[in-house]
Amino acid sequence: MAFGTIEQHVDDGVLTVTLSRPEQLNAFTVTMAEELERTFREVNDDDAIRAVIVTGSGRAFCAGMDLSADGNVFGLDESRRPSLADMSDLSDPSVARVRDTGGRVTLAIHDCRKPVIAAINGAAVGIGATMTLAMDARLVSTKARFGLVFGRLGIVPEAASSWFLPRIVGLPRALDLALSAEILDAAATVENGLAATSYEPDELLPAARALADRWTKGRSPVAVALTRQLLRRNPTYDHPADAHRVDSLAMFWTSVGDGKEGVEAFLAKRAPDFTGRASAMPGFYDAWIDEKP
Amino acid sequence: MAFGTIEQHVDDGVLTVTLSRPEQLNAFTVTMAEELERTFREVNDDDAIRAVIVTGSGRAFCAGMDLSADGNVFGLDESRRPSLADMSDLSDPSVARVRDTGGRVTLAIHDCRKPVIAAINGAAVGIGATMTLAMDARLVSTKARFGLVFGRLGIVPEAASSWFLPRIVGLPRALDLALSAEILDAAATVENGLAATSYEPDELLPAARALADRWTKGRSPVAVALTRQLLRRNPTYDHPADAHRVDSLAMFWTSVGDGKEGVEAFLAKRAPDFTGRASAMPGFYDAWIDEKP
Amino acid sequence: MAFGTIEQHVDDGVLTVTLSRPEQLNAFTVTMAEELERTFREVNDDDAIRAVIVTGSGRAFCAGMDLSADGNVFGLDESRRPSLADMSDLSDPSVARVRDTGGRVTLAIHDCRKPVIAAINGAAVGIGATMTLAMDARLVSTKARFGLVFGRLGIVPEAASSWFLPRIVGLPRALDLALSAEILDAAATVENGLAATSYEPDELLPAARALADRWTKGRSPVAVALTRQLLRRNPTYDHPADAHRVDSLAMFWTSVGDGKEGVEAFLAKRAPDFTGRASAMPGFYDAWIDEKP
Repeated sequence: MAFGTIEQHVDDGVLTVTLSRPEQLNAFTVTMAEELERTFREVNDDDAIRAVIVTGSGRAFCAGMDLSADGNVFGLDESRRPSLADMSDLSDPSVARVRDTGGRVTLAIHDCRKPVIAAINGAAVGIGATMTLAMDARLVSTKARFGLVFGRLGIVPEAASSWFLPRIVGLPRALDLALSAEILDAAATVENGLAATSYEPDELLPAARALADRWTKGRSPVAVALTRQLLRRNPTYDHPADAHRVDSLAMFWTSVGDGKEGVEAFLAKRAPDFTGRASAMPGFYDAWIDEKP
Repeated sequence: MAFGTIEQHVDDGVLTVTLSRPEQLNAFTVTMAEELERTFREVNDDDAIRAVIVTGSGRAFCAGMDLSADGNVFGLDESRRPSLADMSDLSDPSVARVRDTGGRVTLAIHDCRKPVIAAINGAAVGIGATMTLAMDARLVSTKARFGLVFGRLGIVPEAASSWFLPRIVGLPRALDLALSAEILDAAATVENGLAATSYEPDELLPAARALADRWTKGRSPVAVALTRQLLRRNPTYDHPADAHRVDSLAMFWTSVGDGKEGVEAFLAKRAPDFTGRASAMPGFYDAWIDEKP
Repeated sequence: MAFGTIEQHVDDGVLTVTLSRPEQLNAFTVTMAEELERTFREVNDDDAIRAVIVTGSGRAFCAGMDLSADGNVFGLDESRRPSLADMSDLSDPSVARVRDTGGRVTLAIHDCRKPVIAAINGAAVGIGATMTLAMDARLVSTKARFGLVFGRLGIVPEAASSWFLPRIVGLPRALDLALSAEILDAAATVENGLAATSYEPDELLPAARALADRWTKGRSPVAVALTRQLLRRNPTYDHPADAHRVDSLAMFWTSVGDGKEGVEAFLAKRAPDFTGRASAMPGFYDAWIDEKP
């Protein structure tokens, strides 16, 4: 795969995606959005990859939307944009097709079958910050900065960050972070619950790597993918009975698949040899993943 | 506006609402509910106001429902009350019209276009406590008391507090606070995650004022209103795709409005001059705010 | 009631349920599931019981599913199991009847009218851990171990734990705990927010007892049951207006019932004498509890 704005490197099953426009502090463009979305969708079918790390090239992680671009961050040419006067009808196709590019990326991260870890090496601002909220963990170096700066520009947090942020830090802190619109240093990022701990710059990628291994090395890729989605989707159901409905299927499926080997290995005190593949999820998986309100 | 139970004072865009029945420790009445609900609805259309602070007159914040009143806290005369024997049919109009007065106030706060900050100067008990859970921040003086005391009286937490409380402190602590029904001092209120920090009594209102400014001064009122509602509404959707649907519209709207000025000012390193008005929200706003299950 | 896998002991209104297969470290079986589910359903109609404590006999709390059993943890004989090839149709009866036994227990705990407290005396692993997530509090002795070990076995967290876990520790920690699949000691269990504090082994049951009393002794059993369900169900609604709809009914019902006595006792500065019974809940209760997506 030849990409213009990101680099990919696979080592022992872990894909490192490096945002790579260092001269522009890895500022986000429509092309970068498309390349990231494609990456997170393609990784689902690539059984050679068990986890993904996202980091930035040079001194920034991602300095936000590239403001020097043409500003058409919605990828809509003039004729396809809705009239501002008519934005009351949500079912109008010209309204419905307004889709923020950052959100396309975070939805692909949310739906991914592999854990995704942000290794925030420097400034993560605007979409550079919100894209990490959809990931499974945020690791920060002492040089990281984290800024939901939208309010300073007269715009709003995007990329479905309003869905993710309160799940990470709770509603009161989410309101404060978004309304204050301040840029946090690494210590404040940890203090606010956005990351668990901070690392010296040269320890950041090894720490991200260790976490990827801790979560996925020697594990069943099918069980990892199912567990990740169970925790992301099931809490949204109105009643735990619906979580029970889905986890019963996931448990049934794995108990006759990798779980059979897992229990045998456990009883024999040997390492398991899982053969399930995340590219071949159970029949109910797609219906469940597509289940939207 | 002439009110009997509250006082209003506007200073540089911040409305301070003072619960003002000091002889009765600002105990809550049906009249106070109506005056508060009206205040939070009217502030939506008043572009001179960018934030609201709620505090109490004298030594209490609000000592709860006025138990010396006639007890008809539901505002229902005898003929309109449901028969207790028939309360099984939720669609029965006499059942559906049972609406707790505290809830009318917290729903108005939830739907407000301006941030609302509780400055808890003394005892906040019963509805005095639950009304603050719908606000965007709770600041407490060292003399504050916070009590979800309902359980001691054989009644239940009201004012939609069951919706707000777990979003603030998580489910296990919410269960403990409501079932224990204890009155917390200022330190315990902070410890339990109900407030971020406590202030000396004479520093409370200045701190609330500083927070209101930090969130709203020099900001786009449209972006503030949208951000507040994005964080309150979008996390309830079953899937982040629906948050994406709405934040895309909010971003599109602001990016051609105050966001255009915001980006230009940022690039020119000058302060932005936002012209958007919260009294004129985008067309999709009302449909979104009215979107109920 | 004669049970084979659990023991029951009632003392002053508190039912202690002891998982009692000490030779097998109280490993979970289909019989234990049935006996626990029956216990949590029957306690709803037993007005002599105001709270439930669950603990383990001997040195373990519950070491997980009994792997020496026939493995048919779904209670389905061969002819009633779905074909793995056909698991795409979620409405197929053979798919819909796949129900994990652990989930049957946690749903009964969720629907219970009495608070349920886990007194984790030793290893709580697999279903031994997830069953406690549906309870209202988890108290751990210094000898407790807590392990969501499913990932090591190639299976997934079950018993609707994906619904409960993020409500207790937030999404990022839930993902880390489930994907890491490690066994935590008592200190790490507290640090991860799964329990509030740890106790010396001989102080564990007295502490659980004290908490049961703090929540229920001298309280209205109707208000306790309603409060517990308000906090479990109402936050799942899309809008606080629906929480308001239900808490209004709960407040109306209690205000003419135990709440009347509660207020009179409060004003007279005497202890209340509540007469409401949890076996006789208001008419709207069943419709509300059965309200599922």
